[in-house]
Amino acid sequence: MKQSRRGQVDPFIVMDVMEAARKAEAAGRHIIHMEVGQPSTPAPAGARRALALALEQPLGYTVALGLPALRQGIAQLYRRWYGVDLDPARVVVTPGSSGAFILAFSALFDAGDRVALGEPGYPSYRQILRAMSLEPVGIPTRPEDRYQPRPQDLPQAQGLILASPGNPSGTVLRRDELAALTARAAELGMAVISDEIYHGLDYGAGFHSALEVTDDVFVINSFSKYFSMTGWRVGWMVVPEHMIRTVERIAQNMFICPPHASQVAALAALDCIDEADQNLAVYAENRRLMLERLPQIGFDRIAPPEGAFYIYADVSALTTDSLGFAAEILDKAGVAVTPGLDFDPHRGAQTLRFSYAGSTADIAEGLERLARFMAAR
Amino acid sequence: MKQSRRGQVDPFIVMDVMEAARKAEAAGRHIIHMEVGQPSTPAPAGARRALALALEQPLGYTVALGLPALRQGIAQLYRRWYGVDLDPARVVVTPGSSGAFILAFSALFDAGDRVALGEPGYPSYRQILRAMSLEPVGIPTRPEDRYQPRPQDLPQAQGLILASPGNPSGTVLRRDELAALTARAAELGMAVISDEIYHGLDYGAGFHSALEVTDDVFVINSFSKYFSMTGWRVGWMVVPEHMIRTVERIAQNMFICPPHASQVAALAALDCIDEADQNLAVYAENRRLMLERLPQIGFDRIAPPEGAFYIYADVSALTTDSLGFAAEILDKAGVAVTPGLDFDPHRGAQTLRFSYAGSTADIAEGLERLARFMAAR
Repeated sequence: MKQSRRGQVDPFIVMDVMEAARKAEAAGRHIIHMEVGQPSTPAPAGARRALALALEQPLGYTVALGLPALRQGIAQLYRRWYGVDLDPARVVVTPGSSGAFILAFSALFDAGDRVALGEPGYPSYRQILRAMSLEPVGIPTRPEDRYQPRPQDLPQAQGLILASPGNPSGTVLRRDELAALTARAAELGMAVISDEIYHGLDYGAGFHSALEVTDDVFVINSFSKYFSMTGWRVGWMVVPEHMIRTVERIAQNMFICPPHASQVAALAALDCIDEADQNLAVYAENRRLMLERLPQIGFDRIAPPEGAFYIYADVSALTTDSLGFAAEILDKAGVAVTPGLDFDPHRGAQTLRFSYAGSTADIAEGLERLARFMAAR
Repeated sequence: MKQSRRGQVDPFIVMDVMEAARKAEAAGRHIIHMEVGQPSTPAPAGARRALALALEQPLGYTVALGLPALRQGIAQLYRRWYGVDLDPARVVVTPGSSGAFILAFSALFDAGDRVALGEPGYPSYRQILRAMSLEPVGIPTRPEDRYQPRPQDLPQAQGLILASPGNPSGTVLRRDELAALTARAAELGMAVISDEIYHGLDYGAGFHSALEVTDDVFVINSFSKYFSMTGWRVGWMVVPEHMIRTVERIAQNMFICPPHASQVAALAALDCIDEADQNLAVYAENRRLMLERLPQIGFDRIAPPEGAFYIYADVSALTTDSLGFAAEILDKAGVAVTPGLDFDPHRGAQTLRFSYAGSTADIAEGLERLARFMAAR
């Protein structure tokens, strides 16, 4: 029995960092986690309460597109956040945004198709594409463009993935940039997938959905980040009306349904905006600390972190081996950070991603450790 | 934006039957459900209790292969059920068996590869394969072989899916049959995937895992059926040792992790064998009723239902249009059944699948309704 070519995906380096951090902790060390892209807070209390009350129900399969009330609640979020009227029939509840990507790629692309994406970017785009016999086409982006692609950068390809706020950069596409990019993609005949998983996590820059500028787009989002529900694996996708039935059939066969218990919790989470905004206030304070201290410490070449909970730093003045540098920081400072290679196979050897999704006390302690490490270097 | 060729999967007919049944119920009718392949019972009480206690924890991402304790518990099940010593490192926790199929197909096959499967069989095999640009190759099976493929039937292909107990047939592969089929597949260079999702649901015939006869196999199972946890989307896959790292990387990127809350519940479910066996006793009684009454009613050409909770009936003497026949039974008898077309695109127009996963009272009532319907026909 031999492995397929498509199955030869790259390792997810952040996972290896997490494993190294776990081993250090198992050996008795205290580690500050600036590597993981997940909140340290649980799902909102109201969400957990709703699930506790629902545990007497059978919680069997739901329909493939998700609980109707949840689809409706998500549609209402589009009115609240963006002033967009969205037909709940176009909302597909998915097993995390990961499941949404699998559905979108299945519905839109055939083996050998090319899908363009900005570099740096979320590494799993590239790996999921490869595992589905699709070809990722990197678009190198520039710090002066806030690490986002420009319309004139789009290559010939069948698809385009946009991400705003971006991971690892945290930078946001403005409304006019979304309009220009989706218009250019339409001219080139590219299907557009807009990853909006960090929406809700913004610090004044505001954020816009691709749905504000076009209906001819797959928009992907999730309860993982703003609603603090990473491990629950419940996300969603908004699809053009003519694609609903196609996506439904693929979802019926590939997933049957998203986890029922998670859907119950997610439905209640929609009413827990106060708690989500309390978490946001913590990230905002963490971000303020990071932006104050990181440049003092020596990490001064950073992208403007407009959203999400990441800071992407150019460390080319410090190293040409971000993997080794991250290992050194873990070893000497007891802080886990992510080498940029996950996000940019070409230039990531000279970048690091810092996550500030943890508690403020942890972030402050991590910054002090980083300061001592850099001072001693 | 246009749809891909791979996205043009067939509708899942049982889902349309469920929708028609739901509409009839919304219109005030009482419907007996013999169409759905899921228990009407909730997850075991111990599983729900464990989750309720865990709800104060963050329940963020787990490692991609699943909670170590759960992988260990599943490995122990192989000792208990089959007397097989299984290294927990080979156990991959998956988002349902559906997720396991996506992982297995990604790890083993490249675009254009052919994967053989018995007809009749679970329809999503075929649809997931197509959505991943793989080619399903049907192996027509015979009632006298209990609707299971024989070694001499295997075509030239890169892969083979076995299913025991089969869906829709409920028939079981004996140990020597598993040995002969996997040996022949190895000769032909086919990777073998053994779907064992209905294990635990047997009525005296016993059941054997492909792992008893070879390590060179992907074995797929789930908490959905025997443990009555369909909507929780938690299953597992046992992989050969040399494939662990490959599957882990694909899982990291495609799924990140199985739903954490469901893993917590599943871990506790492993200790709820008494409750699972009580459910089994209900199915056994349902099966007894079905086998007694169905032939009297006029459904006398049925596969020996050795496991699972299905009876597959040849209705060629009654109709050549199982879709219309099922619609007529729903309309006139108020019983939802599944037309065979989902399971066998060629001969399924003359077969029906009856599920007896419901309560015994419902099954008895359904049988009476079917009897009246057939008497009046």
